[in-house]
Amino acid sequence: MPDTKKPWQGRFQEATDAFVEAFTASVTFDQRLADVDIDGSIAHATMLAAVAVITRAECERIVDGLEAIRADISAGQFSWSISLEDVHMNIEAALTERIGDAGKKLHTGRSRNDQIATDIRLYLRGAIDQILIEITRVQAGILRLAAAEAATIMPGFTHLQVAQPITFGHHLLAWGEMLERDYERLQDARKRVNVMPLGAAALAGTTYPIDQAMTANLLGFDRPARNSLDAVSDRDFGIEFSACASMIMMHLSRMAEEMVMWASPLIGFVELPDRYCTGSSIMPQKKNPDVPELVRGKSARVFGHLISLLTLMKGQPLTYNKDNQEDKEPLFDAIDTVQQSLLAFADLIPAMVPDRQAMRLATMKGFATATDLADYLVRRHVPFRDAHEIVGKLVARGIELGVDLSDLPLAELTAASEAIEPDVYDVLTLDGSVAARDHTGGTAPAQVARAVREGVARIKARSEYAHLGPEMLPNDAVG
Amino acid sequence: MPDTKKPWQGRFQEATDAFVEAFTASVTFDQRLADVDIDGSIAHATMLAAVAVITRAECERIVDGLEAIRADISAGQFSWSISLEDVHMNIEAALTERIGDAGKKLHTGRSRNDQIATDIRLYLRGAIDQILIEITRVQAGILRLAAAEAATIMPGFTHLQVAQPITFGHHLLAWGEMLERDYERLQDARKRVNVMPLGAAALAGTTYPIDQAMTANLLGFDRPARNSLDAVSDRDFGIEFSACASMIMMHLSRMAEEMVMWASPLIGFVELPDRYCTGSSIMPQKKNPDVPELVRGKSARVFGHLISLLTLMKGQPLTYNKDNQEDKEPLFDAIDTVQQSLLAFADLIPAMVPDRQAMRLATMKGFATATDLADYLVRRHVPFRDAHEIVGKLVARGIELGVDLSDLPLAELTAASEAIEPDVYDVLTLDGSVAARDHTGGTAPAQVARAVREGVARIKARSEYAHLGPEMLPNDAVG
Amino acid sequence: MPDTKKPWQGRFQEATDAFVEAFTASVTFDQRLADVDIDGSIAHATMLAAVAVITRAECERIVDGLEAIRADISAGQFSWSISLEDVHMNIEAALTERIGDAGKKLHTGRSRNDQIATDIRLYLRGAIDQILIEITRVQAGILRLAAAEAATIMPGFTHLQVAQPITFGHHLLAWGEMLERDYERLQDARKRVNVMPLGAAALAGTTYPIDQAMTANLLGFDRPARNSLDAVSDRDFGIEFSACASMIMMHLSRMAEEMVMWASPLIGFVELPDRYCTGSSIMPQKKNPDVPELVRGKSARVFGHLISLLTLMKGQPLTYNKDNQEDKEPLFDAIDTVQQSLLAFADLIPAMVPDRQAMRLATMKGFATATDLADYLVRRHVPFRDAHEIVGKLVARGIELGVDLSDLPLAELTAASEAIEPDVYDVLTLDGSVAARDHTGGTAPAQVARAVREGVARIKARSEYAHLGPEMLPNDAVG
Amino acid sequence: MPDTKKPWQGRFQEATDAFVEAFTASVTFDQRLADVDIDGSIAHATMLAAVAVITRAECERIVDGLEAIRADISAGQFSWSISLEDVHMNIEAALTERIGDAGKKLHTGRSRNDQIATDIRLYLRGAIDQILIEITRVQAGILRLAAAEAATIMPGFTHLQVAQPITFGHHLLAWGEMLERDYERLQDARKRVNVMPLGAAALAGTTYPIDQAMTANLLGFDRPARNSLDAVSDRDFGIEFSACASMIMMHLSRMAEEMVMWASPLIGFVELPDRYCTGSSIMPQKKNPDVPELVRGKSARVFGHLISLLTLMKGQPLTYNKDNQEDKEPLFDAIDTVQQSLLAFADLIPAMVPDRQAMRLATMKGFATATDLADYLVRRHVPFRDAHEIVGKLVARGIELGVDLSDLPLAELTAASEAIEPDVYDVLTLDGSVAARDHTGGTAPAQVARAVREGVARIKARSEYAHLGPEMLPNDAVG
Repeated sequence: MPDTKKPWQGRFQEATDAFVEAFTASVTFDQRLADVDIDGSIAHATMLAAVAVITRAECERIVDGLEAIRADISAGQFSWSISLEDVHMNIEAALTERIGDAGKKLHTGRSRNDQIATDIRLYLRGAIDQILIEITRVQAGILRLAAAEAATIMPGFTHLQVAQPITFGHHLLAWGEMLERDYERLQDARKRVNVMPLGAAALAGTTYPIDQAMTANLLGFDRPARNSLDAVSDRDFGIEFSACASMIMMHLSRMAEEMVMWASPLIGFVELPDRYCTGSSIMPQKKNPDVPELVRGKSARVFGHLISLLTLMKGQPLTYNKDNQEDKEPLFDAIDTVQQSLLAFADLIPAMVPDRQAMRLATMKGFATATDLADYLVRRHVPFRDAHEIVGKLVARGIELGVDLSDLPLAELTAASEAIEPDVYDVLTLDGSVAARDHTGGTAPAQVARAVREGVARIKARSEYAHLGPEMLPNDAVG
Repeated sequence: MPDTKKPWQGRFQEATDAFVEAFTASVTFDQRLADVDIDGSIAHATMLAAVAVITRAECERIVDGLEAIRADISAGQFSWSISLEDVHMNIEAALTERIGDAGKKLHTGRSRNDQIATDIRLYLRGAIDQILIEITRVQAGILRLAAAEAATIMPGFTHLQVAQPITFGHHLLAWGEMLERDYERLQDARKRVNVMPLGAAALAGTTYPIDQAMTANLLGFDRPARNSLDAVSDRDFGIEFSACASMIMMHLSRMAEEMVMWASPLIGFVELPDRYCTGSSIMPQKKNPDVPELVRGKSARVFGHLISLLTLMKGQPLTYNKDNQEDKEPLFDAIDTVQQSLLAFADLIPAMVPDRQAMRLATMKGFATATDLADYLVRRHVPFRDAHEIVGKLVARGIELGVDLSDLPLAELTAASEAIEPDVYDVLTLDGSVAARDHTGGTAPAQVARAVREGVARIKARSEYAHLGPEMLPNDAVG
Repeated sequence: MPDTKKPWQGRFQEATDAFVEAFTASVTFDQRLADVDIDGSIAHATMLAAVAVITRAECERIVDGLEAIRADISAGQFSWSISLEDVHMNIEAALTERIGDAGKKLHTGRSRNDQIATDIRLYLRGAIDQILIEITRVQAGILRLAAAEAATIMPGFTHLQVAQPITFGHHLLAWGEMLERDYERLQDARKRVNVMPLGAAALAGTTYPIDQAMTANLLGFDRPARNSLDAVSDRDFGIEFSACASMIMMHLSRMAEEMVMWASPLIGFVELPDRYCTGSSIMPQKKNPDVPELVRGKSARVFGHLISLLTLMKGQPLTYNKDNQEDKEPLFDAIDTVQQSLLAFADLIPAMVPDRQAMRLATMKGFATATDLADYLVRRHVPFRDAHEIVGKLVARGIELGVDLSDLPLAELTAASEAIEPDVYDVLTLDGSVAARDHTGGTAPAQVARAVREGVARIKARSEYAHLGPEMLPNDAVG
Repeated sequence: MPDTKKPWQGRFQEATDAFVEAFTASVTFDQRLADVDIDGSIAHATMLAAVAVITRAECERIVDGLEAIRADISAGQFSWSISLEDVHMNIEAALTERIGDAGKKLHTGRSRNDQIATDIRLYLRGAIDQILIEITRVQAGILRLAAAEAATIMPGFTHLQVAQPITFGHHLLAWGEMLERDYERLQDARKRVNVMPLGAAALAGTTYPIDQAMTANLLGFDRPARNSLDAVSDRDFGIEFSACASMIMMHLSRMAEEMVMWASPLIGFVELPDRYCTGSSIMPQKKNPDVPELVRGKSARVFGHLISLLTLMKGQPLTYNKDNQEDKEPLFDAIDTVQQSLLAFADLIPAMVPDRQAMRLATMKGFATATDLADYLVRRHVPFRDAHEIVGKLVARGIELGVDLSDLPLAELTAASEAIEPDVYDVLTLDGSVAARDHTGGTAPAQVARAVREGVARIKARSEYAHLGPEMLPNDAVG
């Protein structure tokens, strides 16, 4: 059994209160860092041996011991002890128990302050890399469905009022753009994560002849931190990640809101597969869109974590304060929530079954081509603001008669403006309306097809593409 | 083994996706509601029997079965199943397995929507009652220390600058006042928690001849909810509690900030007992005030939960949406955090050892009696604003000479204002200064003693007093 | 022109930097406190005269001077000066300019620290009283519409899926219940607002023989604060109000979400009057529900203010720190936002025009009476869980055939369960379904009518009722 | 007087309610966008003329008219009208009044939806560029002071306990590193701001033959948006900026906390110049560090704005909803707060006057070289964990005797470990301790000097360097 003496007990005259021991321990939640903690320790030991602070033989014993511990942990055979406070001391105590005095030398030239900062960065870097894959998978799913629905007419909404006809593919690609920014933001954040705190020791650096470049290289860090005080107190990387995570969840919540509405029998634009829904214990007919609702709800918890982390750091003097122990649970939960939510949507989105007829019918309910009529008038030299007013009055007339613009008799139309001629009905069709918006970012099916191709090309250029099967992207012939 | 068929599978043609099943399940965190869930079910069954919806015999079998399940859970012998989604279905499935068809009748006239709302309310009511006890214990500890330090001089700060001499007891009582408001707020919040959702069923009420007054009475609720739609969708009680919890933590964070500063060797006003501190793995001399730092940090997580819950509910249409499943984890964590933080401070605060000499010396550093000198001048008919300016100039002179006001020679003083006479030195003493602020809320030792007595009386009048030992309060002779 | 010398310049050797002067000044936003600041000063002067710290004549000059300044401010003829920092010094400088040395005596026995705390409390107390009136007006509007729509069938939703038939009146009363809790919470918060900081002076109390009971009485406060340090540093009352305000806005955002959806042409449950909507500068047919959308959006700013205030106070040592100057803008904006949003909804809600036919048709789309069928089976001794499964299969059959349950032929029904008999169709009607939920909080029209009557009675018992015209409440004959 | 008819009144039968008009208008706060709105309109008109949608002559009249309006606004001679809703319609109405029908053509091919998104992006881009300059100025000030204090000993803190000796220059450079990340983050965010929404029109694109590349080029945008629906609904750029702003403010709040503590007479590490401080209206001796306190407080408001913006967007369906009007005030206030806080610190930080003796004395209070002693033992082959315990016991002995480690007699030291020899006193000096931490990021004066030189080089490589006077950076000879 490892020695559970605290690594700092020398100057104390009184044992730690049992409640306080449990209250201040972090091992219940930081044990998920075990793997990266061992990675960091192996790199540190390797460097210590290279600069002759420990011997090669000691280094080997340390590395072997740590790998054995890693295997134990992985096999669920490691016994975590609260009285050893945290993941670091649990592993180090086990190491010393296993290999003797060499284990006590591992901590030379470092402190838990730079060690934990290193661990979190390594862990977060891995999580970001995983999330980049998952974002890419969701985007691939969006592209597949968008390719299939490039010409499907649906109402475009502003204020949840029918605004103009758009295509369903175009709508889906808007989701893809949101995620594209999220992808870029995470890549930018990763640069600031990938800086090595080791060498900062407790706060001021170390007196040992360490080789920071070597350790950084072994751990894949871009460079060591430029200031030791900053290195042990900086938690920006966690906050920046949480801000990125919040924006991802905000985007997923917007998609979720739309899926929930679309799946309502009152709107009925899409059917969600049974396997992503649940029912009611009392109402036998219910089929509830639980997954998107839950994702929408989960956005709130990630926002909460972001504000927690900012508030946590607010007004803290340098350098490390125990407050910082509170950085881990919000960060870990933000990582988990984003990963799971992306996983859920990667499968759910391309599995939605659109009801094309319901979408088209809905588009015909809301005078969606009114703007097209105004544009028609402008092309006939009516100033835009006047055209707008003419069409507004025709819409009022349509409401009065209970018919859409395309159903108004020509006489009604020409009475409103002498610029109107029989060809006006061409611009009042839904397909004509969408096809006419044929420019970068426009809703025309041709533009949707082009945007899908460009999106596919962007994904293929990513390293994450290796993690997708080829069937995950629409084939090249789209459009 | 209980049947893990979903209680709603009738209309579905496809099994739930395994990931979705785990993603949407709540049993991993809502199993802590098992006890109140069983309480609620027993009351519901008792009522159903009373109105003859089920038979007396069925009711007895249900109650016996539920109590047996409660015992299993309490003994750690209950096997929770993710595929049974939540605490309710896990218990109901076990019940039906144990007692047969009668178990299937338990859910008559209710839904998981009113059931979960009831469970959370029962659970939160219990948590509030516990927190009220814990607040009372912290206040008792404050009163003990304040009684002992009613006349101890320390600097009163504004802007962290020495402002006026105060007494340490007076400072501690300010902490007590913060908690007094927290106590009152929780009592107010409890009224709104203690309303019964049962009867709302899924959302619209039930067609069974339920007796809501009876169920409410059995469960200790003040009344049934007045609107079924509201009853299943309202989560105000959790938000209001979280707001109360945030204020408690904000207060504890302010106390923590002061304890951390006071314990710094640069200030040295108090010594924290070793048993509430930890050390450093690298710096052998360190004794870190971990407990107050951690509490200060934990305030952030509770603020985060509050904003999560508000954001969660924002813009949700009636009635129940799956988003609401996200209400539990923030609420539970807020409860746990507040309880543990109060527990920690209830022991820590009265165990602080003040360094009275350090406090007095610090008070003499900052011209703390300058206001007394101004007041002296006003009593000699110098308008306050003029007196302020005269003293300001004397302070500038003291800084120049490196001495406190009480060390300035009389000639310097009278040169500044002819209203000054030799008796001025009486008002420049620290003890004279505090004694002179002798009115409700003032810092005079006599007022501190009176405030302690009143605080003791308030605590004695509370039902929570029963949970304190008599040694928890200062004895009546104080002051 | 008033003397712009700072009230604290004595000990300083360097003038304030001009940017710093503007950066630290609060008069641009705290001038809205002028009225209550003058009220507080008049009460303070009156008390000072009563205890003979100033003479009766001085008091009269002060009161007359302050009233003249109040008139100037009210007439827009007061010149606010940034270099006088805040509302207090602007008014005091003007007073001294106007009445001479007596003005300089007004500040005797108080400080800006207790003065500003008093001002904010007086201001907030007034705002709360106004908001209580506005909540009452919204509730009255809800009751009027609910009375008229007590029997109007609409779909009750969970997960935005059609769950059970409910009545529109019942739905509206759920809104009323939310506001009822908001009303109660504000009343509770008001108790903690209405405590007087005056007497605390800078932080430690004052050496003058003040009569706190008299000042409190003059200003309508319940009592003076019990601890001077707490009195000048406590901002709980603003946080508690902001939490109440956040919950109000959260509720309004939920109502808003529903109004926006109901007004969408895809759902069409209500028409919002043109006068509460705006259009589009480009799409001539648009009629946008701007008011509810804006209110929904505005909830976010109030949540932000709440978190700002909590974060502001987190970790602040006692007593007053300049950070606290940041308490005012969030609080004022929260007050304004809540007031305006309530005003908007008080008019908008009762002006909604429901489309009863659209609501009824929608209810028929979603197998809304499935629960009634299950309950029917239970009454015929089918265990609830079995009944649920039978109905689930009938719903699946309905989806297959494209018909509602009430349109399934009897043979289909009896094939599913032999407990079904021809009278089953009675429970499958919408009106039968709602009428059967006839208990406290249930959706039956009779219960809605009763709930309206009780709501009217609650409003009539409030002091705010005096501010409503009699036409604001439904007449007694309802139901 | 411009025509105040709404640009969308055609289909409406009822005028907007006066309260609603004011409630929904944004012109009171969006008029600060006037300049960029005019820039955008000129570019749009120029493009419309280039593609022959309007004539060259119309374009010229539009441009001249807009420039005249810009001059009016700049001169304070423009009359803003609430009934014209927003900055766009105010300007357009004024334009049409001034130049007639050509003015009505300006809005061809765009909508307020893409116009406002363009305006905010242009405005924010300018604000970011200004903030980058201000960050650079603060960093320059830090470098100047750090260069001067590269060898000044002060206590390095963890947990506000004295941990190890560091140099004041090193501490200041930690502040510089925080801002370095803030600088980088803003640069990354700027890329996502600098994308052009124009062309998206209301939501679906436009039927006019627009040349998006031309407009983007005229306005300095990197590219047009790739999806029109996303272009009008995306507010990520504001959220991302607010997250960056929150981190800047978090960093400034940490600096502020330290400045406030350092300026307290109990610690006394620095004197803040009188011109950045204010006094007390009642306590004549006070000199309050208002500027850092206010900045610390202001961090809270920016965090609040961030959470507001996230909450605002949560769950919003595509595309534009009126909720989004609420995006501007938080964003503008975040910009203003960051700019002013940076301005304040750019002057304040280099004006701090350190008290080198006070810092050195404080360092000698806390056994700051205990780690050096442990390292000494390790170099003499004592395993680190054992060395830690030996030193811990010597510290306990020092506390007992009331002396620092360097004052313990050799006999006490050698009794603790036979590895200790007389040369041990060399490592117990403060200067020896800091000098020994001589590696990248370490606190050695040589490393501080090197870090200053590298920091200067980084600033000189920035485009923002052009906005600094040469006297803003320390001269090259440093170190």
